[in-house]
Amino acid sequence: MPLANLLYAQSGGVTATINASASAVIETARKYPSRIGRVYAARNGIIGVLREDLIDTRLEKPEAIRALRHTPGGAFGSCRFKLKSLEQDRAHYERVVEVCKAHDIGYFLYNGGNDSADTTHKLSQVAEALGHPMICVGVPKTIDNDLALTDVCPGFGSVAKYVAVSTREASLDVLSMAESSTKVFVLEVMGRHAGWIAAAAGLAGSKEGDPPHLILFPEVAFDEPRFLAAVKSAVEKHGYCTVVVSEGVRDAQGRFLAEAGSKDAFGHVQLGGAGPVVAEKVRAALGYKYHWAVSDYLQRSARHIASKTDLDISLKVGAAAVKLALAGKNAVMPIVKRLSNRPYRYEIVTAHLAEIANHERKLPPAYIREDGFGITRAARSYLEGLIQGEAYPPYINGLPDYVQLKNRAVKRRLPDYPL
Amino acid sequence: MPLANLLYAQSGGVTATINASASAVIETARKYPSRIGRVYAARNGIIGVLREDLIDTRLEKPEAIRALRHTPGGAFGSCRFKLKSLEQDRAHYERVVEVCKAHDIGYFLYNGGNDSADTTHKLSQVAEALGHPMICVGVPKTIDNDLALTDVCPGFGSVAKYVAVSTREASLDVLSMAESSTKVFVLEVMGRHAGWIAAAAGLAGSKEGDPPHLILFPEVAFDEPRFLAAVKSAVEKHGYCTVVVSEGVRDAQGRFLAEAGSKDAFGHVQLGGAGPVVAEKVRAALGYKYHWAVSDYLQRSARHIASKTDLDISLKVGAAAVKLALAGKNAVMPIVKRLSNRPYRYEIVTAHLAEIANHERKLPPAYIREDGFGITRAARSYLEGLIQGEAYPPYINGLPDYVQLKNRAVKRRLPDYPL
Repeated sequence: MPLANLLYAQSGGVTATINASASAVIETARKYPSRIGRVYAARNGIIGVLREDLIDTRLEKPEAIRALRHTPGGAFGSCRFKLKSLEQDRAHYERVVEVCKAHDIGYFLYNGGNDSADTTHKLSQVAEALGHPMICVGVPKTIDNDLALTDVCPGFGSVAKYVAVSTREASLDVLSMAESSTKVFVLEVMGRHAGWIAAAAGLAGSKEGDPPHLILFPEVAFDEPRFLAAVKSAVEKHGYCTVVVSEGVRDAQGRFLAEAGSKDAFGHVQLGGAGPVVAEKVRAALGYKYHWAVSDYLQRSARHIASKTDLDISLKVGAAAVKLALAGKNAVMPIVKRLSNRPYRYEIVTAHLAEIANHERKLPPAYIREDGFGITRAARSYLEGLIQGEAYPPYINGLPDYVQLKNRAVKRRLPDYPL
Repeated sequence: MPLANLLYAQSGGVTATINASASAVIETARKYPSRIGRVYAARNGIIGVLREDLIDTRLEKPEAIRALRHTPGGAFGSCRFKLKSLEQDRAHYERVVEVCKAHDIGYFLYNGGNDSADTTHKLSQVAEALGHPMICVGVPKTIDNDLALTDVCPGFGSVAKYVAVSTREASLDVLSMAESSTKVFVLEVMGRHAGWIAAAAGLAGSKEGDPPHLILFPEVAFDEPRFLAAVKSAVEKHGYCTVVVSEGVRDAQGRFLAEAGSKDAFGHVQLGGAGPVVAEKVRAALGYKYHWAVSDYLQRSARHIASKTDLDISLKVGAAAVKLALAGKNAVMPIVKRLSNRPYRYEIVTAHLAEIANHERKLPPAYIREDGFGITRAARSYLEGLIQGEAYPPYINGLPDYVQLKNRAVKRRLPDYPL
């Protein structure tokens, strides 16, 4: 019986630090040659497992694996492909186990968010039912910061830092221009369901009157007259107004703002996002000159301004996941437990995937200011520790020296499985 | 007769390094206490001069002036306020001279682009005609990189670096997602008339197939069928496609793309910019899932990822402007003369404002690839040197420690001048 191999896969939207977790998984696994055989990665997450498209990480040099620590994106490819319930997708689950069996996978590590925790959990059950001994461990990751139990999701601290830094910088720009030009600046950030990222922009200001003057959360129904009055008041008081808007902001009827008024001349929907929609409302009602930015993928791939704290956490959960696997802990996930706010201290503890899968952590109401347009002291205490420290990548010729792996495929052993 | 004072003002769109020039102007002027009296700054550029709203920089501590080196935005306020011809705006020019006379301004330094060079030039003529001895010197600045004669405009190197870094990062993200999700990513960058910034995105890739796969320049009329065919070809070849689009891209009829199809359901114009318009065309014709980002002010205020080379140039032109003023050189501007490409070496030389004002430097046709969708080796040779080196600001508590000056007003001596 050959040594059990380890299979690592990335899932869902990638982050600035998911590759750091990958790096820690592979480096840690390589430290146990008597217990772990080969370390494989699935190409494009679970899709690669279903297709039996595995990558042999042994062919990557130690320097390349180390360089994953400072490389954004998902180095092995990620996927948006959700395995549904065991009843609905039984064949898929069985195929995954079949592929793992064929390649002697004894450890399966899935790096993702809620859905991936769910998949990993179900997989551990199917593997057991099919008599293939395989330890399944989740590795947390998501910029949405919506995983239950963990103090923070790896990847969130870096997008939080990017958004706070960008808000501070752009606000200095608007402030300089406001007397004779732009008076309102709108920055749209990610967050379809929860306002964690929008809240992080609040860190840009530290005292009354500092930007951002208004934050629009998905948790607070957009009240146009109140919003416009608040913009007017900020411009009159400070000379300008910085608005940070979450892409998931909805009106009182629950419709996304981004959908509510952005058909183009030909009737196409969703040209603009919430940012341009909000900016246009300001122009139409108040006549202020505005600018808007949508940072989109830039915010979650901005490894150049990653949080050192986030990087450390991402590395630690990767290493911890391998150790949990070696300890025979099945259907678990290493998570972060906060020990103190200032300085931010934490430890890595273990949670059961059943407690994480299909739960969603919302931004607590106590983090949203009473007027609905800002963050509270409690939010600040929670968020501040997560953006501490800089972790610059190396540069060559003026640009970050990001690694691209060889990603050579492992020889297939099974027939095709059409997806 | 009191010692001549120096008046410094900022004009037009600000940059990540215009304050570095301000810092160098003030620090250099402070080194000549026997020749320069007080150093004033105009609040909000020429508007502050017209209103006699001057700032006394003596009240700012040396540490604060030094911190301007790493602070984006325009620390004294900038303006979009163009003085027209001497015939049309004679009263304004005379008012400026009157204010300068009242405050013993012997040196006027105006930090801006084309329009400011023109204003500074005219002002030197009016001052002379009105018998007020005042040396007028321009300090170059503009992210548009469109000033004549100078090798590069201070501020451009930093936005170039931001755009190249962001393109590289976001492309790694798209590459990870492309198998089952986003296949096309569109990044809109600034550049209403010239494609200098869009061209800089081309630095993100170094070999065939690297992103950005397509750049849309204002210099090349948008040809929709050719563009769509190129996107399709890139996706089929590389699995994904990164498009960088200049905000100023126009169709064959000369209409901005951003205007050409972006009325919302209520008939409001210009919700979206060129980025979302292009992305929507891709979706409609090819059905690919897309994401788009508009970096807007983020790109020109991103001091956190400024080019060290750009910072050095910005400091040098600031210091040189003061020295030119002290040498009695009137109506001139310190500019950059390139000495070599690799390594990038340059010296600061002097140009007459008459040669700079009202000229615009376009992106040379030789910098645009034959197919119109990329940059040439010549462009790369030109651009590469400008993004060399990182010049990180200091951080406190996870955020850049940017300075805000006191900006105390100088006591007025003249009656109001309604604008």
